Amino acid sequence: MEDVVGNTIQCKGFRAAGIAAGIKENEVLDLGVIFVSTSASAAAVFTRNLVQAAPIKVSKSRLAGGRARAVVVNSGNANCCTGEQGLADAHETVEAAAEALGIDAEDVWVASTGVIGASLPMHAIRSALPKVIGCLRPGGFDDFARAIMTTDTVPKLIQSKGEIEGGEFTLLAAAKGAGMIRPDMATMLCFICTDVEIEPALLQRGLISATERSLNRISIDGDTSTNDMVMAMASGQSGVRIATEQQFEIFKSTLQRLLMDVARQLVQDGEGVNKIVEIDVRGADSDKAALRVADTVAHSPLVKTAFFGEDANWGRIIAAVGRAGVPIDPDGIDLYFDDVLMFQNGQGCGSEAEALSTAVMKQSSFRVRIDLNQGRGQAALLTCDLSVEYVKINADYRS
Amino acid sequence: MEDVVGNTIQCKGFRAAGIAAGIKENEVLDLGVIFVSTSASAAAVFTRNLVQAAPIKVSKSRLAGGRARAVVVNSGNANCCTGEQGLADAHETVEAAAEALGIDAEDVWVASTGVIGASLPMHAIRSALPKVIGCLRPGGFDDFARAIMTTDTVPKLIQSKGEIEGGEFTLLAAAKGAGMIRPDMATMLCFICTDVEIEPALLQRGLISATERSLNRISIDGDTSTNDMVMAMASGQSGVRIATEQQFEIFKSTLQRLLMDVARQLVQDGEGVNKIVEIDVRGADSDKAALRVADTVAHSPLVKTAFFGEDANWGRIIAAVGRAGVPIDPDGIDLYFDDVLMFQNGQGCGSEAEALSTAVMKQSSFRVRIDLNQGRGQAALLTCDLSVEYVKINADYRS
Repeated sequence: MEDVVGNTIQCKGFRAAGIAAGIKENEVLDLGVIFVSTSASAAAVFTRNLVQAAPIKVSKSRLAGGRARAVVVNSGNANCCTGEQGLADAHETVEAAAEALGIDAEDVWVASTGVIGASLPMHAIRSALPKVIGCLRPGGFDDFARAIMTTDTVPKLIQSKGEIEGGEFTLLAAAKGAGMIRPDMATMLCFICTDVEIEPALLQRGLISATERSLNRISIDGDTSTNDMVMAMASGQSGVRIATEQQFEIFKSTLQRLLMDVARQLVQDGEGVNKIVEIDVRGADSDKAALRVADTVAHSPLVKTAFFGEDANWGRIIAAVGRAGVPIDPDGIDLYFDDVLMFQNGQGCGSEAEALSTAVMKQSSFRVRIDLNQGRGQAALLTCDLSVEYVKINADYRS
Repeated sequence: MEDVVGNTIQCKGFRAAGIAAGIKENEVLDLGVIFVSTSASAAAVFTRNLVQAAPIKVSKSRLAGGRARAVVVNSGNANCCTGEQGLADAHETVEAAAEALGIDAEDVWVASTGVIGASLPMHAIRSALPKVIGCLRPGGFDDFARAIMTTDTVPKLIQSKGEIEGGEFTLLAAAKGAGMIRPDMATMLCFICTDVEIEPALLQRGLISATERSLNRISIDGDTSTNDMVMAMASGQSGVRIATEQQFEIFKSTLQRLLMDVARQLVQDGEGVNKIVEIDVRGADSDKAALRVADTVAHSPLVKTAFFGEDANWGRIIAAVGRAGVPIDPDGIDLYFDDVLMFQNGQGCGSEAEALSTAVMKQSSFRVRIDLNQGRGQAALLTCDLSVEYVKINADYRS
């Protein structure tokens, strides 16, 4: 497997483009299209938020069919809480794209990200759609990835290659995140293209399974935004067919590794993020209990500000474990910062451990391991620090 | 009922004091004692965190007896995660206080607040205890309230008077909070003195009921720190006896109003707080559902940073409602900032409403009302903005 970044990222059967349509100011790229030359198998997972943007409603209606030829994505405007007009705008967008591409509107999916509550500037989108479609090319994914950014500072575009029974296949993912860990703090969009041949139902199964332990581990408990969407399209152009369980396992694990890389990039580029921290909980009564502990620690503002302050404040972590809502014995917890044992037998491990762990925290990435020593349940997730910059970015986002 | 602040705050039968014992640096007050001249009925609620500080364990062991003569409180050190030594230190503290006061150690309660994981400086406490006890006086509650502060910027001391069947009684509360809304972000301590005569079981019932809709509405879902404690003592010296249901109702509602004032003061002085916002959810299927929605909105970092930025970003509030985990119909929500209708029929109410609500948000205190228009359930709670100062305070707390 190899990962490549840049214009060389391509996937057989797919073309992509991104242009400045004038949805955002200052001629920033804000409209992207992915187009597949033949009808692709399609799969998707959507936000579980009960407030759903118009494009989510439209794309959801495509899911049952399991097919796609194109997806149109705009940044700068979420087209959410925009009423009947918003739905009409989303429909007009897919119809205009379908016409320009010469395909059926039912084969066009749509996604939006940006501010909630403002109507889409349809005049801009109408005139830009033929233009962006004119720019479609196999190496256009870098522009596409740039066009879907909001407060992201870098585009997220990753490619993986895999092999099944001598045949090589490609997977690529273009994503945007920008909010912090929880997508309640920003829309997360991810578009996956692959050249394998796979039935829509199997692709859906693979996508659900792979997101569960990657993107959903930075997006716990359905805390999703109104616009979140992960979409996968398979062109079948590589000649590699995924049909048997064994073939599916290889494909799925390649997809999962790709999405874990995407997850890490999303956190790394989170708003105001200086530190990426893996919260690794073991020895819980169940995986579910472990996840609950990890989630409570990962989202504690006190813990996250201590990460920002590079303060090995294990007391805040232990206090978060104690209120996670699962039965634990405080005296049984072992707490490590990377490999430094900080807390054991209900007490801190002293000043030498503190000094060592402070060094650990000066790194841009480290691991907090919490062993409850009760059972075999485990869960890991990625979190980050809560910084002054995060507050500034989010206090100023609309202005 | 009248509220008074300062040295005039007294309660029959009680004396209090606070001194600088040297637990903190710079001769700041850090050790306080309340002493009651006769055995008082006592009641308390404690943190639900499974990690509990040594003083919590000691005070809890006093609860069944329902009596107290004194409570010793230190700031600057939480005596939490301090193992057997911590428990021994808490016991030594109550024994030393009991000896100096000439009372039984079983009648002395204890509380601590401050950094987790460091042992109490017992040499300082040992020599300071006789001194603080020598300072006990009826008007000493102001010093006491100062001695229990951590990052609080002002002491919290409130008095209420009530009348039952022609007899006047007094209630006072000395509290510390300082963390933000959730006490997972700081220890919340509150000590209530009253001169009514009341059985411990009835006092406990009143305390639980009154805290439920006051202090627990800034402390949702058991998200409590390792050291939280609310204690009430009744000296019986006013001659007012609480025995009938009717007398109890008057006492309880006076207590509840007092604790709502305490709650508001705690939020007002929260770390880095510029805005106090009441999240008022109505029309839910149940009170429980309403509380869940209010809680999700009140703790959303995106919503709280928007408060800080004085940005009437209703989209973030609606998105938080949508992920609260209770069934709602987005198109049925009415959202108000004070009396300004911002969102209705699934859409924002336009630029005039935005302009009006931006003016609302410039106030230091306002209300967000969310009417789900589904049922009769309701809940209100107090939250605050998430500011740059909050992050700075908590990143630097230990250093």
